[in-house]
Amino acid sequence: MVVTIKDIAEKVGVSVTTISRVLNNRGYLSDSLKKKVSEAMEEMNYQPNEVARSLLRKKSHIIGLILPDISHPFFGEVTKHIEAFAYDQGYKLMLCNSLHHKKKEKEYIDLLRASRVDGIIMGSHTMSVKDYMSINLPLVTLDRQISKSIPFIASDNYQGGVLATQLLLRKKCRKIAYLSGNLRLSLLAKQRHDAFLEQVSGQDAQFQFIVKQTDLNGFKYKEYEKLVSGLFQEHPDLDGVFASSDMLALQVLKQCRRLGKAVPDQVKVIGYDGISVGDAEDLTTIVQPIKMMGELAVRYLLLQIAGEQVPLETILPVRLSEKATT
Amino acid sequence: MVVTIKDIAEKVGVSVTTISRVLNNRGYLSDSLKKKVSEAMEEMNYQPNEVARSLLRKKSHIIGLILPDISHPFFGEVTKHIEAFAYDQGYKLMLCNSLHHKKKEKEYIDLLRASRVDGIIMGSHTMSVKDYMSINLPLVTLDRQISKSIPFIASDNYQGGVLATQLLLRKKCRKIAYLSGNLRLSLLAKQRHDAFLEQVSGQDAQFQFIVKQTDLNGFKYKEYEKLVSGLFQEHPDLDGVFASSDMLALQVLKQCRRLGKAVPDQVKVIGYDGISVGDAEDLTTIVQPIKMMGELAVRYLLLQIAGEQVPLETILPVRLSEKATT
Repeated sequence: MVVTIKDIAEKVGVSVTTISRVLNNRGYLSDSLKKKVSEAMEEMNYQPNEVARSLLRKKSHIIGLILPDISHPFFGEVTKHIEAFAYDQGYKLMLCNSLHHKKKEKEYIDLLRASRVDGIIMGSHTMSVKDYMSINLPLVTLDRQISKSIPFIASDNYQGGVLATQLLLRKKCRKIAYLSGNLRLSLLAKQRHDAFLEQVSGQDAQFQFIVKQTDLNGFKYKEYEKLVSGLFQEHPDLDGVFASSDMLALQVLKQCRRLGKAVPDQVKVIGYDGISVGDAEDLTTIVQPIKMMGELAVRYLLLQIAGEQVPLETILPVRLSEKATT
Repeated sequence: MVVTIKDIAEKVGVSVTTISRVLNNRGYLSDSLKKKVSEAMEEMNYQPNEVARSLLRKKSHIIGLILPDISHPFFGEVTKHIEAFAYDQGYKLMLCNSLHHKKKEKEYIDLLRASRVDGIIMGSHTMSVKDYMSINLPLVTLDRQISKSIPFIASDNYQGGVLATQLLLRKKCRKIAYLSGNLRLSLLAKQRHDAFLEQVSGQDAQFQFIVKQTDLNGFKYKEYEKLVSGLFQEHPDLDGVFASSDMLALQVLKQCRRLGKAVPDQVKVIGYDGISVGDAEDLTTIVQPIKMMGELAVRYLLLQIAGEQVPLETILPVRLSEKATT
C-alpha cells in the first residue's frame, strides 16, 4: 500500500490542504504542526510523490541519455560515469538505446520531452539537424557535432589519429591498414581517418596503406570479424593495423592468433578508446578521457538547465598507451 | 517554448477544460471539435505532458533498473535487451548504477518509488531482505534470489559449473583453479562453485584444485589482474582454469601471454557468460541466454504490474561453447 498525504492528514487530524502546505512550506505553519506532520510521515514511511512535485517545480530532475548501443563497452563505461556524476548532482538517468534506428531515436526524443526530462545527452544521431533544432530542450552531444549551436564534448580525434599513425610509422611498418566504423556517419571520429591519411601521405613510393570501414549499422561483432578476416586474405603482407576502436582491434588480434601471425613481431596493432577490455589484452591504444567526457556532458547540461552559458566546443586531450601489441 | 493545452485552447477558441476532455476522451465531444483540436495540436507541435498524464493514470510507464555496474559488459548486454524489450512494450527505463554501495542502492529505491516507477528490476543487492520486502512495488531480480516471495530470473548456474568442470577434466587437466567473484555475496553464481567442488571431489589423490575469489567490491579489473598474477606465481604448474566470468578469463589469457604459457597446450581456460568480448578472444565459455534473461525480466515485471501471477523461480538453460582456449 502506497501511503498518500490523505493518510498523513487523517493520522495528524488536519486537512489534506494543510499537509500540502507543510510539504511546500506555504503560508503560516506552527512549528508543532510541522513536527507532528514530519513525525507521522516518518512513522508511516511516506514517500513524497516526485511526479506531482515535478509538476509544481517544473523540473523533473531527470536527464535523458540516448546512445547507439549500451552493450558496446565504450558506451557502457561513459554511461557509468554519466550516471555517477548525475546522481551526485541529484539527477536520475533515463536510458534510451537507439540502435541507430532513426524512427526509434525520434520516438525517444518525443517520449523524453513528454516525460519532461530537464535535458538530453545525445551520443547517437541519425535525425536531421532540423529535427534537433526543434527539440527545444537543453542538449549536449557526445562525440558528435550536430550543429554550431548545440554544445558538444569530444576528445581530440585528430591528435589521436596522429599519435596512432606516427607510432606505427616509428615502428617501421610499411603496409598499414586503417579500420573504422562507417565514414559516412558524420562522426567526429572521422578526423582519426583524416589524420591517418595526412600522416601516411609523406611516405615513399614503396609504402602502402589500406582503408576499410564497416557497414552503416554499426556495432555487429560478426561483421567486424568478416571485415578483418577479409582484410588479411586480401593483404597477407600487412605489418600494421590502426583500428579506430578497441573492439575492432580485438578482432584483429583474434585473426592474427588464428593465422599464426605474431603480434607485435609480424603485425603491430593499435586500437582506440582505452576501454577495460582492451587493457585485458595488453592492447596498445589511444586513451580517451572517458570519465571526464561523461562528467562534462552532465555538467554542461546542468549549467544549461540552470540558464547558464556553456562552451559550444569542448575538445579533451587523448594520450597514447603503449603496451604489448606494437 | 513548450506548447501547453492553454495555447491549444486559445487557438481553437474553447476552454482548457474542453481540451482536457478531448485529451482524456471524457463526456460528449463532437467529431468536428475533436478534429479541430487534433489539427491544432499537430500544427503547434504539442507534446502531451506525460508527467501530468501519469498522475491521472497512476502509471508512469517507467521501469527502474538497478545494476551493480553498467560498464561491466555482461550488464551492458543484458541492459540492451531489457531496454529494447521494454521499449517495444511502451516502457521507459530509468537506470541506476549501485556500484555495490548499500547507501546508494537504498537511496535509489526511495528515488524510484518517489518517481512512481511501475516496477523495479534488480540486478544488484546489498540491502537486507527486510528492506526489499518493504519496497511494495512489483519486483524481479536478475541472477539473485532475495527471498522466496520475490520472482527471480537466472540461468542454470549449477549446470554451467558442471559443464565447465567436466570439460577441463575430460581434457585431462590435473591441477585446476576456480576463480570467481566474492563467494560471500549470496549470489546464485555461487552454485558454479558448488558444482566445481562436487565434480572435482571424485578425482584421485594426485589431482589438485585451488579456489580463489576477488574482494567484496567487485568489478575492478586491476584487482582481477593481481589475483590472476598471484595465482600463477603460487601455482606455476596449473594446467586448467575455470573463471566464473569471461572478464576474469580474459585476465587469465593475458597472464598466460605474459608468462609465455601456451593456451590451450599448457593451460586450458574456460570462462562464463558468453559476452561479445570473450567471443573476440575465441574464448571457450559457458553461454548464458542473456537476451532471454533480459526479456523475461521485463515480461514478468509487466505481468506483475498488470496484477497477474508470475513464476517465482525461472531458471534458464546454459550451453557450452567450445572455442580455442581449451
